[in-house]
Amino acid sequence: METVPSLADINYAADLTSGFIHRTPVLSSRNLNEILGAKIWFKCENFQKAGAFKFRGASYNILTLPEEERERGVCTHSSGNHAQALALAARKKGIPAHIVMPETSSPVKIAAVEGYRGKITYCKPTLEARESTLLQVQEQTGAREIHPYNDLKTITGQATAAKELIEEVPELDIIMAPVGGGGLLSGTALTSKYMSPSTLVIAGEPAMADDAYRSFYQKKFIPSVNPTTIADGLLTSLGSLTFPIILENVDQILRASEASIIQAMHLVWERMKIIIEPSSAVPLAALMEVKENRYKSLDFKDKRIGIILSGGNLDLYNLPWK
Amino acid sequence: METVPSLADINYAADLTSGFIHRTPVLSSRNLNEILGAKIWFKCENFQKAGAFKFRGASYNILTLPEEERERGVCTHSSGNHAQALALAARKKGIPAHIVMPETSSPVKIAAVEGYRGKITYCKPTLEARESTLLQVQEQTGAREIHPYNDLKTITGQATAAKELIEEVPELDIIMAPVGGGGLLSGTALTSKYMSPSTLVIAGEPAMADDAYRSFYQKKFIPSVNPTTIADGLLTSLGSLTFPIILENVDQILRASEASIIQAMHLVWERMKIIIEPSSAVPLAALMEVKENRYKSLDFKDKRIGIILSGGNLDLYNLPWK
Repeated sequence: METVPSLADINYAADLTSGFIHRTPVLSSRNLNEILGAKIWFKCENFQKAGAFKFRGASYNILTLPEEERERGVCTHSSGNHAQALALAARKKGIPAHIVMPETSSPVKIAAVEGYRGKITYCKPTLEARESTLLQVQEQTGAREIHPYNDLKTITGQATAAKELIEEVPELDIIMAPVGGGGLLSGTALTSKYMSPSTLVIAGEPAMADDAYRSFYQKKFIPSVNPTTIADGLLTSLGSLTFPIILENVDQILRASEASIIQAMHLVWERMKIIIEPSSAVPLAALMEVKENRYKSLDFKDKRIGIILSGGNLDLYNLPWK
Repeated sequence: METVPSLADINYAADLTSGFIHRTPVLSSRNLNEILGAKIWFKCENFQKAGAFKFRGASYNILTLPEEERERGVCTHSSGNHAQALALAARKKGIPAHIVMPETSSPVKIAAVEGYRGKITYCKPTLEARESTLLQVQEQTGAREIHPYNDLKTITGQATAAKELIEEVPELDIIMAPVGGGGLLSGTALTSKYMSPSTLVIAGEPAMADDAYRSFYQKKFIPSVNPTTIADGLLTSLGSLTFPIILENVDQILRASEASIIQAMHLVWERMKIIIEPSSAVPLAALMEVKENRYKSLDFKDKRIGIILSGGNLDLYNLPWK
């Protein structure tokens, strides 16, 4: 594998993970299509195992882990979907997963990782503490670090979601994914450029955490500084592997306000009767803002649009519209 | 049509409504199967048009309305899913739908009926006022009343949900539906007895609105008296047509407490990432109680169980676990 996964790499990952991951459904809603004035197909990674697309990259890493490393296992630091995904994928193959989590992580997320038999090490809630604690865990266990986005196998695994979507819905004018660290977006962009080169690849990003937007349009890496957004899966900055892939293969990044994200999330819950987390709602939220502004930044009227709904994990006791 | 729909009637309704209604997906969850200790397939009528199975019976009525009655239209009194379903089915065929609603109906429900262009007449929130207002509307408009459950065509239309489920998942040991007025349960029981006679037909009913349970086991009609349950789609008593069908074709009725209903609903939201209304959760809630009581009333361990999730309409701003 070079520094950019090839179509052959993505096809190999799809074959290898087939049956291990869910081939998630693609849903559409006439009602939402009317509201947006376009034809939208939603790739429902909220129905993926462990509740998010992260299970794809985690599974591809687990299934390609060298035999001699299986006993030592894998490790990562994460307080979110990647932690759950890695714990579950590892457990299904009998491989230990060491998860470094901030001691301030929500009880719901801790319970989920524990439910999947992840071995949790707690640390202070700073990036520095997370990284140094992970190093200690690695030294003690010899486990291999599986990075949530800045890793070629992770990117290749995430790419299989777009592959399934494009296979099921051909001739998309636009394909969209949310962007945080950029693993899903990189995989989506590469797959789309390989399989459907005329499709525009557009990312949705919270305006309150718009490091990818700024990096992309200024063509230099600008990290996030203390971002705050309800789309808590999208707080991280791009990585050294994902940024160049995105720069090369993404056509546009649209931003969405917090209010639009909540509105889009509510709309999907209400009209489609499916549960998505705030991060999943960001591309739709961005489209809603574009439409309100008379399509100034993107004319998607009557277009065929594929949107990857990234996940459905959130605290049902603490909804944003309470 | 006799007083009981035949298999030919149900097949005819399925053919006629095909393409007009959604053939809804059947979903299952390994996680829920582990928790319940059985194999459960959920027929997702929460994804049906207008958000509930009621669209089936309403559609069959609309599609078989005599040509000469189309201009005068249809009418009903309902504050719930039947009102929305009838308004939408009628609108799709350009037929007026007159809906009598209690003036205390929630703004969400009123907005939904208005959104489907139903012509609303408000009345006092008593059964007497609903019926007398409906009579007035009928006199003024000549519209035909479409009863939400005590109507053979309505029952026949609702029966198509079980038909689709049984076609997709053969050899069910048990098929379950919630029971309120009994339209869905009657249709489910008849279809099951025709197509899969060895399958047990079991209803779930809120213990706080258990008129069907009492009527069924005492073999005489006992109406509900001021029932209060979170499962607000199941408040009505059985009808003169549905009660005999249920007595003849249902094998068992299980009751569920309010706490179990909320717990089951939360479980489906959390694990399956789909939105169901409280009424939909009643059969699963009943199974959870049976399991807790060591399967005393029903040994469903390792059994193949089909459950009809009746709908997904509820006020997202007012969830039961807040």
